[in-house]
Amino acid sequence: MNPQTTRLGWIGTGVMGRSMCGHLLHAGYSVTVYNRTREKAAALIAAGARWADSPAEVAKQPDVVFTMVGYPTDVRSTILEKDGVLSGLASGGILVDMTSSQPSLAVEIAEAAQARGIQAIDAPVSGGDIGAREARLSIMVGGDEQTFQQLMPLWNLMGKTIQYQGKAGAGQHCKLTNQILVAGIMVSMCEALIYAHRSGLSLENMLTSVSSGAAGSWSLSNLGPRILRGDFKPGFYVEHFVKDLGIAIEECKRMSLDLPGLVICEQLYRSLQAEGDGRLGTQSLVLSLARRNQIDWPT
Amino acid sequence: MNPQTTRLGWIGTGVMGRSMCGHLLHAGYSVTVYNRTREKAAALIAAGARWADSPAEVAKQPDVVFTMVGYPTDVRSTILEKDGVLSGLASGGILVDMTSSQPSLAVEIAEAAQARGIQAIDAPVSGGDIGAREARLSIMVGGDEQTFQQLMPLWNLMGKTIQYQGKAGAGQHCKLTNQILVAGIMVSMCEALIYAHRSGLSLENMLTSVSSGAAGSWSLSNLGPRILRGDFKPGFYVEHFVKDLGIAIEECKRMSLDLPGLVICEQLYRSLQAEGDGRLGTQSLVLSLARRNQIDWPT
Repeated sequence: MNPQTTRLGWIGTGVMGRSMCGHLLHAGYSVTVYNRTREKAAALIAAGARWADSPAEVAKQPDVVFTMVGYPTDVRSTILEKDGVLSGLASGGILVDMTSSQPSLAVEIAEAAQARGIQAIDAPVSGGDIGAREARLSIMVGGDEQTFQQLMPLWNLMGKTIQYQGKAGAGQHCKLTNQILVAGIMVSMCEALIYAHRSGLSLENMLTSVSSGAAGSWSLSNLGPRILRGDFKPGFYVEHFVKDLGIAIEECKRMSLDLPGLVICEQLYRSLQAEGDGRLGTQSLVLSLARRNQIDWPT
Repeated sequence: MNPQTTRLGWIGTGVMGRSMCGHLLHAGYSVTVYNRTREKAAALIAAGARWADSPAEVAKQPDVVFTMVGYPTDVRSTILEKDGVLSGLASGGILVDMTSSQPSLAVEIAEAAQARGIQAIDAPVSGGDIGAREARLSIMVGGDEQTFQQLMPLWNLMGKTIQYQGKAGAGQHCKLTNQILVAGIMVSMCEALIYAHRSGLSLENMLTSVSSGAAGSWSLSNLGPRILRGDFKPGFYVEHFVKDLGIAIEECKRMSLDLPGLVICEQLYRSLQAEGDGRLGTQSLVLSLARRNQIDWPT
């Protein structure tokens, strides 16, 4: 994976993809990019990336093609359908999907890739826009282990916690596990704030008492204070979280798994999105719970 | 609050109370103790505490009487009923209930105390047996603020995070807020482990990927590894957690508060207790979820 001889492709230059692809460019790799909305790739092109007109075009030269798009339907069309990556990538190439998506789709892609002599890797991340910018992502990798090892120089440019999780789809399963954890923490944090508010506590004093003990969490320390400031800007969009939790629920059905806590979390976030707050950050669940309880939440 | 001139009473010498009372004794205070089961006070008596035969007897001499008992019914009988603390404590005295109990009961006690010229303070704690032993508890205090300040030398002997929360009952409300947070974290942690297990992930590798980011929590870092070792010994008993969550649900009803996540958490922990695991630690919820999903959880 020498920057002088390895050619990369990158598809999907949204908030996350832009930063991650930027690190690869910055390390000296030659990168060809594509994005549905071309303007969002402008900064990367200015920094030396080459533009291509379709996923298949991106895949023409490269040894490794990355995809970081929105929803599973985007993953499918970008990779599997007409003018998709697999129709352009040569045998011996590597495809890395870093979108948070369906484990079953990751398996389907890996099988279609294998039939063409291509290794497909699923490698969703956590850490958000800040983690992407600072190259501190946690990267959860599924697929062939040797290919995972081979890509290590590239992982290291984008992330801090790099962990192989198992065969195709295992990266996606791990990301869903991460989201199940986050969902329960977020719901209980927002419910706790609503409880504290209704019972007349000072939210600041309450946070002082509970943040450093058994009730402590990354969310409470980082998003709790934002909620108190009335800051509902997205670190992570509600609509993307609803996507992830929906996939987790589907996978539970597929695996005959009954997880009652997850079900209620997914429902509460779906309500929040239905109420029109899909483009706010996940901490805005407190607004939905406040409406539900006739609380005029201070913003 | 000079150790030479201040006399203290302590009722309830279980795992928590024993350590907390021990710190007061160790600092040179003269302490009279009572416990339903006398043997559990033996170590304190050996360390210099005086024994009394009832809560009222404990309260005869002291300036400040602490109670740290089990359930709200114990709080009621220890403080309000025949031979209770209030029937023994002189006007001008201070009563501090450190049991996790009902906010409404704390208000009732404060009013009954006030009618006798006594200040009653509610001061539940978090931090568990280890926090009690190491004097690192978080103490959440409700009641008269001047009395709270007056007791500061004593709080400092038992805890690290000492925070006034407001009028009578506010300490209890803050503890319930803490427990609402913990419940959601524990449920999502156990569900995430079940999901990861069923989807074939290595639980160790999964924890590596998720522990330090947005899914991170005190519980995941401290109880996650215990679960993986098959260690279900109580840091905190399931039956005490069920008590606390039951009180939180009651308070929600009283305040017309709809918190769907809390409801399902309480139900899941009640199931676990009904299945016979009330004396295990709260991390044993994973066993109940495993049974529910026909998983033979490795212990």
